[in-house]
Amino acid sequence: PDTAARSEAEARNGQLTKPPGALGRLEDLAIWYAGWRGDARPEIKAPQVIVFAGNHGVTAQGVSAFPAEVTVQMVMNFRHGGAAINQLARAAGARMDVHALELDRPTQDFTQGPAMSGAELLSALQTGWSAVDPQADLLVVGEMGIGNTTPAAAIAHALFGGTAADWTGRGTGVNDAGLANKTRVVAEGVSLHRSRDGLEVLRCLGGRELAAMAGAIAAARQLRIPVILDGFICTAAAATLAAISVDALDHTVAGHQSSEGAHRVLLEKLGKEALLSLGLRLGEGSGAALAINILKSAVACHSGMATFAEAGVSDG
Amino acid sequence: PDTAARSEAEARNGQLTKPPGALGRLEDLAIWYAGWRGDARPEIKAPQVIVFAGNHGVTAQGVSAFPAEVTVQMVMNFRHGGAAINQLARAAGARMDVHALELDRPTQDFTQGPAMSGAELLSALQTGWSAVDPQADLLVVGEMGIGNTTPAAAIAHALFGGTAADWTGRGTGVNDAGLANKTRVVAEGVSLHRSRDGLEVLRCLGGRELAAMAGAIAAARQLRIPVILDGFICTAAAATLAAISVDALDHTVAGHQSSEGAHRVLLEKLGKEALLSLGLRLGEGSGAALAINILKSAVACHSGMATFAEAGVSDG
Repeated sequence: PDTAARSEAEARNGQLTKPPGALGRLEDLAIWYAGWRGDARPEIKAPQVIVFAGNHGVTAQGVSAFPAEVTVQMVMNFRHGGAAINQLARAAGARMDVHALELDRPTQDFTQGPAMSGAELLSALQTGWSAVDPQADLLVVGEMGIGNTTPAAAIAHALFGGTAADWTGRGTGVNDAGLANKTRVVAEGVSLHRSRDGLEVLRCLGGRELAAMAGAIAAARQLRIPVILDGFICTAAAATLAAISVDALDHTVAGHQSSEGAHRVLLEKLGKEALLSLGLRLGEGSGAALAINILKSAVACHSGMATFAEAGVSDG
Repeated sequence: PDTAARSEAEARNGQLTKPPGALGRLEDLAIWYAGWRGDARPEIKAPQVIVFAGNHGVTAQGVSAFPAEVTVQMVMNFRHGGAAINQLARAAGARMDVHALELDRPTQDFTQGPAMSGAELLSALQTGWSAVDPQADLLVVGEMGIGNTTPAAAIAHALFGGTAADWTGRGTGVNDAGLANKTRVVAEGVSLHRSRDGLEVLRCLGGRELAAMAGAIAAARQLRIPVILDGFICTAAAATLAAISVDALDHTVAGHQSSEGAHRVLLEKLGKEALLSLGLRLGEGSGAALAINILKSAVACHSGMATFAEAGVSDG
């Protein structure tokens, strides 16, 4: 981030017509955003939402309440404008792009071998990297992939330890027996693949849409585009970057806390506090898209408000 | 509310292309909104933000960190578009109106007598009532009035008991001595005015902008316009209506939880759970305005999403 722009934004914040600190986290968000954009009085005009879709060999283990063909069906739904994320992106004034990653070629079941080869991982990372519009000024990455809370749980378990049960939740809605089975699958995958290197964890236990999200988040950092993280799966993908470099997620903020069980703890591990907590557990980038307007509002206050001097208001 | 529209909205919600419940509170919000609007597939096109301003005789007791002339200065700032609420209303696509209530005639210091006469209360209620645009489809009421966390605390203490200290906070930022003084003032007011009738509490301990907010909230119910409550002062004003009729606030949702100390407890007393908790404590309707987009997004998902049948998606 640009420390001069950040300092200038901090100084401006102290002069705006409000009691000190009265806009709470909106003030911190605006200053953080100003630093990353290198502009002490920025605007948010071009948010981008990207949804990546992938299929997972691990669905053969019966880890999801929905059949795998729903992934491609939902991609069509995204393209026709009928999904939740379409409505949320529009309500936030964001453009939306959809990238389906080789849906007819699921990853390998990670209880049998690595989910992806090195070439497959690289290809998925590049899809994500290239999907980011360099002109965007805010990014949300979301996902669709039946079964993908299982790789997300496996990534979190591999990176942060604990037990498989600590990280495994009900996803779209498996029952108690389904949860026990899913927990077993996560445990098996993590004990089969022993490397704890971020990219190797992503390759062995992740999936194409998770790798694409990681690629997009990394690209956004280089382009100085702030990112709003979505729920459990997006955060798990992001965590592989944090495992590589401690400051890899400094340009990101947690959009919401999902009701998927382990998301709260995962955010804590990354030192992130969610902006929203409304019980969402949909994926698609939905919680992050809902937070776009919070960030827009924070920046609008910061850049649009009058100072005490401009408004002729006594500053206490 | 319209039970037929509500039931129809519930049925529609169950058919949308998402796992059941995956949009969390957004689903409840959309169904609630549909019921109040009498439309199972509603839209939010015309939100209105109204800011009421008033002055308070109780500032003579030294209860605020800011001088009383800031009220009129901030009204000018609202009119010139320089305040936080101007930016937040614009970001939410809402129209904004400002009503200054006899700023050159503060209420009476409630430690000496009733804040308002019956005629003054009625006039302020009517200002609020008349300020609501019957064509609005969502309402936010906010306030500006140096010293007005003191009447808000007094109202809460009168209606819900406990001690004056339970309800008295730092407002725009009084120090420890200021807080002790403010607590004394609240205790004195509440012991001087013994009636616990909602309107009488509002008259004796409230203020013009609080009464106007109560009038607007009551009018909105009659017009079937859902309301987003703002922070501590707005909620205290609303609580006087709930004291008169238990269902008086069924058309309202709590937009945010203010960091003003007692707001959380006040919301609990009213059975409301805030949508946002971002550490705001500004007033002006700022927290509620920030929540407009949450409600818009909820309704946009509900009314804009495809059903499983429409999208050709397998529903698990």
